[in-house]
Amino acid sequence: MKTLPEMIAHKRDGHALSHDEIQWIIREYTREAIPDYQMSALAMAIFFRGMSEDEMVALTLAMRDSGSVLDLAHIPGRKVDKHSTGGVGDKVSLALAPWVAACGVRVPMVSGRGLGHTGGTLDKLEAIPGFSVQTSTARFIELVATVGTGMIGQTADVAPADKKLYALRDVTATVESVPLIVASILSKKLAEGIDALVLDVKVGRGAFMKDLDQARVLANALVRTARGAGKDCVALLTRMDAPLGRTVGNALETAEAFAILHQRAPRDLYECTLKLAQEMLILGHVARTHEEAQAKLEAALQDGSARDTARAMVQAQGGDPRVVDDPSILPVTRTKIPVKATQNGFIQSIDALEVGLAAVSLGAGRTRSDDVIDPAVGFVFERTLSEPVTAGDVIAWIHSDDPARAEAAQTRVANAITVGSSAPTVPSLVLERIG
Amino acid sequence: MKTLPEMIAHKRDGHALSHDEIQWIIREYTREAIPDYQMSALAMAIFFRGMSEDEMVALTLAMRDSGSVLDLAHIPGRKVDKHSTGGVGDKVSLALAPWVAACGVRVPMVSGRGLGHTGGTLDKLEAIPGFSVQTSTARFIELVATVGTGMIGQTADVAPADKKLYALRDVTATVESVPLIVASILSKKLAEGIDALVLDVKVGRGAFMKDLDQARVLANALVRTARGAGKDCVALLTRMDAPLGRTVGNALETAEAFAILHQRAPRDLYECTLKLAQEMLILGHVARTHEEAQAKLEAALQDGSARDTARAMVQAQGGDPRVVDDPSILPVTRTKIPVKATQNGFIQSIDALEVGLAAVSLGAGRTRSDDVIDPAVGFVFERTLSEPVTAGDVIAWIHSDDPARAEAAQTRVANAITVGSSAPTVPSLVLERIG
Repeated sequence: MKTLPEMIAHKRDGHALSHDEIQWIIREYTREAIPDYQMSALAMAIFFRGMSEDEMVALTLAMRDSGSVLDLAHIPGRKVDKHSTGGVGDKVSLALAPWVAACGVRVPMVSGRGLGHTGGTLDKLEAIPGFSVQTSTARFIELVATVGTGMIGQTADVAPADKKLYALRDVTATVESVPLIVASILSKKLAEGIDALVLDVKVGRGAFMKDLDQARVLANALVRTARGAGKDCVALLTRMDAPLGRTVGNALETAEAFAILHQRAPRDLYECTLKLAQEMLILGHVARTHEEAQAKLEAALQDGSARDTARAMVQAQGGDPRVVDDPSILPVTRTKIPVKATQNGFIQSIDALEVGLAAVSLGAGRTRSDDVIDPAVGFVFERTLSEPVTAGDVIAWIHSDDPARAEAAQTRVANAITVGSSAPTVPSLVLERIG
Repeated sequence: MKTLPEMIAHKRDGHALSHDEIQWIIREYTREAIPDYQMSALAMAIFFRGMSEDEMVALTLAMRDSGSVLDLAHIPGRKVDKHSTGGVGDKVSLALAPWVAACGVRVPMVSGRGLGHTGGTLDKLEAIPGFSVQTSTARFIELVATVGTGMIGQTADVAPADKKLYALRDVTATVESVPLIVASILSKKLAEGIDALVLDVKVGRGAFMKDLDQARVLANALVRTARGAGKDCVALLTRMDAPLGRTVGNALETAEAFAILHQRAPRDLYECTLKLAQEMLILGHVARTHEEAQAKLEAALQDGSARDTARAMVQAQGGDPRVVDDPSILPVTRTKIPVKATQNGFIQSIDALEVGLAAVSLGAGRTRSDDVIDPAVGFVFERTLSEPVTAGDVIAWIHSDDPARAEAAQTRVANAITVGSSAPTVPSLVLERIG
């Protein structure tokens, strides 16, 4: 076998590494036998040269196998998860998991926390009084088997190679590499013991991928690599120029997510959740077509089974199940201040990135992984894209009890909103389906 | 100022780093405030994106200034050194330094040891009984002022940034980067306090640069960067397909080097040394033209002043000065075995890389920097390029007292020589002059 410097040179010169070489590199790196300085040089070479589909599959599997992998084979039915590449106001998972589980697909969902301008599912779940995202593997498996879904945080023994490598990439300008992103996402998802995966690849100002071409490249790489690793996979490219739904902030988003199950959610949020749910039902082998999937999903709302599953999931994880129907039990701020329209017209755009950053500075998110967040703070948009406003109308509320931070956020959110004289056409939230 | 990950990303995306940024990076890296894993990622980004001339100048100066810089300004006359990118049988420096010094140019020469298939000047000098390449800076300056030349090894306080960075590049596949090679070579040379530098950029099988285009790119970058740093500079591209001269091995090469000063050296070795010396005399402002330089150099051989300077230099550094005239005082093996011609014809090629590697395995060089070498072992070629041979003639002698290693080298050297039916034309050793 080649020496490690020879392998780095091989990749640097545009050649593919073998399955065995990649496996060896990840194994040795995980047990600290390969130093960070060789790994970062290799990561930079991968940034420039990319990886073949075979290499991405090998890297994904090697990183998955660096830690423990859940075995859900004894649970009947297909196990399907959803992963989003991250956006502002993206509270889809909280409703999606119980909704899809109510239709007979098992949804073992391992999520992350918010970092930077994008939120995290765990932070939203923890806004629910009593809810615990930390549970034993045995208990998680039991939840998937009995309730149909469980929503937890990543345990320390899942894909440790990814944790090490991601921390290194973060400080060596090697985050923005499609093969490394693919392996990072899929290694963790594949460790959940799933049969199939639906990906929500966000595109736009508030997303990691700013343009459609980039997002398409990433989505294709994800889908092909997941399939190369033996998992069914479909990706939807969805717009993330404006925040999803009308709320940003943890408790506010949790309330809005459960509103989906009452058919009281904003149109864009409902559309996004429904489309992803349809794909999960198809990959979960409980529907053959999108129409059939939609009918089953709508039935689960009408017969109350989606809400039942949501309540059961919240209760099983220590939370107060009334939250599914009564958002008033969630933490709130005592104070809110308005962002008002300064002219008549129609809302042209709401800059998701700016809104996300404003939410972080208000205390809803983190700039460092050890920042403490406030579940109650956030924004509620009274008006959204293409809706009419009159000067003086409240466009949004800033929820915060800290006057200085509230005022700073007020200015920032106001600046993130543009108003024009005619109503823009709002395109479909789903831009493309790759599968 | 940008953060370091931002600087790495900036270079990664094809933009130039500023003088201040480069200075900061090298200063912080030298004092271990920047970890190796960020430096290796940056080195790989530089490998792919290259550096502008301004960046190379900034990097060279920053690396030079990471350690102590000799001040030779008080010594009258121009101080000029020569640097070779390394070859097999390259013993030029040992004769060149005293020869040029005898013509009135000061030659402060700091050299390296052999590593891999290429030899090192220090190892050849140490074949001389008593000769010391380790001396104080004060003594070295005194030698340059009184004898006109001194030949020493790099002290620990010269360009420590280069030592750190080179060791890192060696294990991260980032050695083969023109800007990093340029800064490595020039930072050390500029720390000698020279006014000008002549470069011998070797091209061919036995050289670091295998083809002329690569070598030309490197030579141009070296010359421009040296000039950007305020030093006169000229580069010669010279052939390194076959070993230079007829000997390989430390004591054998030392003897052949001093033969130059007696006009008894092989034609290619004499030509290479003379051409480099001419450039040094011109950059040293003691000759205006190549013709004038050649006349002065030939006069220094005829009047004995070149040999006088060589003896003075050897004596001043603790060696036995008789070595300049009497190679028999150098260490020898008791045994030598022949490599014989197996057919009639003319020598077509002698593979310098193979000969260099055979010399290393015989004990003349190192595969690791802590290997101990044997000064006496090596090869003497009785026949060289385009010369006729008859089957049974001795083409070369293997000097070694270790029968097993001698026989292995015998086979390897025999395989490195090709014999054909007609005499090939041997082109000039100097392929191009860049200056």
